Amino acid sequence: MSAENKITVFETTGFPNPARIRAALAEKNALDQVDFVEIDVMNKEHRTESFYAMNPLGTVPVLRTAEGDFISESTAITEYIDAHFDGVSLTGQTASARGKIHMMQRRAESMVMDAVGTYFHHATDGLGPDLETNQCSQWGNIQLANAKNGLLYFDRLLANSEYVAGDSFSMADITLFYGLAFADFAKVEISAELTNLIDWREKVGQRPSLKG
Amino acid sequence: MSAENKITVFETTGFPNPARIRAALAEKNALDQVDFVEIDVMNKEHRTESFYAMNPLGTVPVLRTAEGDFISESTAITEYIDAHFDGVSLTGQTASARGKIHMMQRRAESMVMDAVGTYFHHATDGLGPDLETNQCSQWGNIQLANAKNGLLYFDRLLANSEYVAGDSFSMADITLFYGLAFADFAKVEISAELTNLIDWREKVGQRPSLKG
Ligand SMILES: N[C@@H](CCC(=O)N[C@@H](CS)C(=O)NCC(=O)O)C(=O)O
Ligand SMILES: N[C@@H](CCC(=O)N[C@@H](CS)C(=O)NCC(=O)O)C(=O)O
Repeated sequence: MSAENKITVFETTGFPNPARIRAALAEKNALDQVDFVEIDVMNKEHRTESFYAMNPLGTVPVLRTAEGDFISESTAITEYIDAHFDGVSLTGQTASARGKIHMMQRRAESMVMDAVGTYFHHATDGLGPDLETNQCSQWGNIQLANAKNGLLYFDRLLANSEYVAGDSFSMADITLFYGLAFADFAKVEISAELTNLIDWREKVGQRPSLKG
Repeated sequence: MSAENKITVFETTGFPNPARIRAALAEKNALDQVDFVEIDVMNKEHRTESFYAMNPLGTVPVLRTAEGDFISESTAITEYIDAHFDGVSLTGQTASARGKIHMMQRRAESMVMDAVGTYFHHATDGLGPDLETNQCSQWGNIQLANAKNGLLYFDRLLANSEYVAGDSFSMADITLFYGLAFADFAKVEISAELTNLIDWREKVGQRPSLKG
């Protein structure tokens, strides 16, 4: 197999977590060093035996390494990409930077990306009845409130911080950026009063890695 | 202030996430290089303005770095510790190791530690009515089912793997170890049939960092 050493990313176009991986690869100038395989989530391709063999949690994205191992969880994939490819650091190079970036990355997930996701999958029609088989609307609505607090938290943070984890762009910015995209998609309002958040979004959205 | 450059860990004795930080420090032989401050969670010290200033999410553990920055989220704190202190690597040194350790660390959280925690806080009396003010028992019980699947998943994984993320001990083992401690505490049964999981627990429990 000629492509046996090429890294492969299993993704679903238009979904926010896979978009994080495209952005990380773009920041590393490595998009052309990777193969992409589309997973048809709407037709439950991520809930087949062959997909579970790659990721037992049944979520995209998944990355197959040059050695043939499967890595899932977007943060873990980003760690792999950051260490494997040269270029700017997305996960930090000092102890303090690594700690802060991982903290902010996790907050961007739990307070925005995953809070919006839980609201969307549990308290709205989500991806439709065929896919949303175990809904819990009470929890979805608790997470909607968390998401609103999360947006407010990041707005305040960005009043005094150039990027989410400080002076440099990092994976935490990527996660928050696609968390906001998910908020738009799920119709979670980003209030016009959150000007720091909106300005930051406009600014980082100019990066080639986050365009389009 | 004579201790201004000493790293400080804000923890609550007996709670599973703070225990992860003690274990990481012990693996690095660095317990004596850190000050510890006890936070009285049962008396809601973690829900005061001064605690929220350290961690807006109101959870322990929190680490104050040598430079005076606050890091929360146990994985982020472990990243800081691993990069700051010499010694064995807890987060991996190659791209593949980093990716796998972060993936497994996250699975140990979402499938065990956090699933058990959500069950405990939402579908049992948890820490009591004074602290559990926004319960959602339906979600707690969904997470109990996830925790049971998680225990089964790790049992199967450990049939063919010396440690959670492969051949070397890592932060993923620490998380799963305290996830099991939390399961015991929350009375989530670890079935005697899960012999790989039980044998692994017995083995890693011999490490000085995980004893006592
Ligand atoms: N924690 C995972 C989350 C991945 C995730 O939830 N992916 C979504 C797409 S953005 C998915 O696979 N959804 C499938 C489903 O909901 O059935 C990560 O960081 O990658
Ligand atoms: N994701 C956090 C979780 C921390 C957490 O949940 N800590 C618990 C103690 S183990 C806590 O602070 N609980 C306080 C409460 O439930 O009110 C981490 O990784 O540190």
